[in-house]
Amino acid sequence: MLKPESTQIRIVLVEAQGPLNVGSVARIMKNMGFYNLVLVNPQCDPHGIEARKMAVHGAEILEKATIVQTLPEALKGCQRAIATTSLDRSLSTHLENPKHSLPWLLGYSAALIFGREDRGLTNVELNYAQRFVRIQSDDAYPSLNLAQAVAICCYELYQAQLNEENSLQTPPNPPDLEVSLDVLEAYYQDLETMLLKIGYLYPHTASSRMEKFRRLYNRAYPSTQEVAMLRGMIRQINWALSNYDQHDS
Amino acid sequence: MLKPESTQIRIVLVEAQGPLNVGSVARIMKNMGFYNLVLVNPQCDPHGIEARKMAVHGAEILEKATIVQTLPEALKGCQRAIATTSLDRSLSTHLENPKHSLPWLLGYSAALIFGREDRGLTNVELNYAQRFVRIQSDDAYPSLNLAQAVAICCYELYQAQLNEENSLQTPPNPPDLEVSLDVLEAYYQDLETMLLKIGYLYPHTASSRMEKFRRLYNRAYPSTQEVAMLRGMIRQINWALSNYDQHDS
Repeated sequence: MLKPESTQIRIVLVEAQGPLNVGSVARIMKNMGFYNLVLVNPQCDPHGIEARKMAVHGAEILEKATIVQTLPEALKGCQRAIATTSLDRSLSTHLENPKHSLPWLLGYSAALIFGREDRGLTNVELNYAQRFVRIQSDDAYPSLNLAQAVAICCYELYQAQLNEENSLQTPPNPPDLEVSLDVLEAYYQDLETMLLKIGYLYPHTASSRMEKFRRLYNRAYPSTQEVAMLRGMIRQINWALSNYDQHDS
Repeated sequence: MLKPESTQIRIVLVEAQGPLNVGSVARIMKNMGFYNLVLVNPQCDPHGIEARKMAVHGAEILEKATIVQTLPEALKGCQRAIATTSLDRSLSTHLENPKHSLPWLLGYSAALIFGREDRGLTNVELNYAQRFVRIQSDDAYPSLNLAQAVAICCYELYQAQLNEENSLQTPPNPPDLEVSLDVLEAYYQDLETMLLKIGYLYPHTASSRMEKFRRLYNRAYPSTQEVAMLRGMIRQINWALSNYDQHDS
């Protein structure tokens, strides 16, 4: 039943606080055939008795969980990332349904990111993702328990895999074309440095302006070649600037 | 958002053993707009500290839960009932998907029945239902936590309600957000001129290279604001270059 690519999807929990939640996440992951749990700076013991009690036969997923300190480390090598969010915040970005958006992760080196129980993900963290999922819920109490949210998403991913198998589709796009997120991140760094240098960005407003660039480019799902092209352009701009500079001095 | 009939669906737990599970069920019920919890001969305290801890703002659902001794009492007055089961057992009956079968409950006085954490529902209990749902899961560990199973079913019921509502409306598209193509074209011209100037493009290869940029940006469907931002960036690069130029001359 388990397709090989399902094992490639990372379930990433950022600063999870509740060991019962982490344990429940491990259980539902195993229920749905996902084995790759990444914990970013966990605020509880993922190997303690409470977590293991809830994991039951998913305890092996807790044992093998990868623990890292920052979200970029958790996303290393990923081609696609979706972040979950419970609130609209100031995101101008479209919030999507799990059913419609999560199948987009299948077949890729991909991550599904969940935030803290009480505060979710910060805007900076959200910006590492290309798409944003919100589980629709009643206005009277919209905030889902973390493990319940993971359960619903893992269920939808599993359903999407089954549907894929049933419809016997051939995979449409070769996944090796899409850029890895750390290369894309390097482009954003290059771009920011250049824009600061030419006075388009100011240090105190750089991050909010850069958010807008990130959203725009993330939405295009650039290929490795395209990011190389964008970085080549920045390099050339820098070269032109320094060249004029040298003439000047 | 909440449709009146959603309040008519009873979530029925038969001999639930875990207070954490019962509390989590109350929370996801409130998240999804279901208020009618019926506990058949509960094997734990649904009003204790553990249940209330997991229910958080769903605690009112625990307080108002109906407690009965037998499943027929729980189903009194119902027109439709679906039972959940994790195993095929000896059921000759067809096991269905939550997505396909649960919408059948909407608009009726209806019950969705969940069995014991360890043993599910007996065959006698299953026979009170008209249809049977199984949440598909991986063969390596098919048994879901009770509260996770309830979460997935409540989510599907809520989604079905939303779909019903949406099918009565025309889907609203915000096409006014997207940039007009002539403004986008002006950006491409600005970009090309600048890239020629800095020597990134050469006149004889400019158009094929520019096609690649066009494809990338077109794919993102940029807004008017975003194109203004991109053009502002080009202007600033040109300003920086000419500024250095003037110093030079």
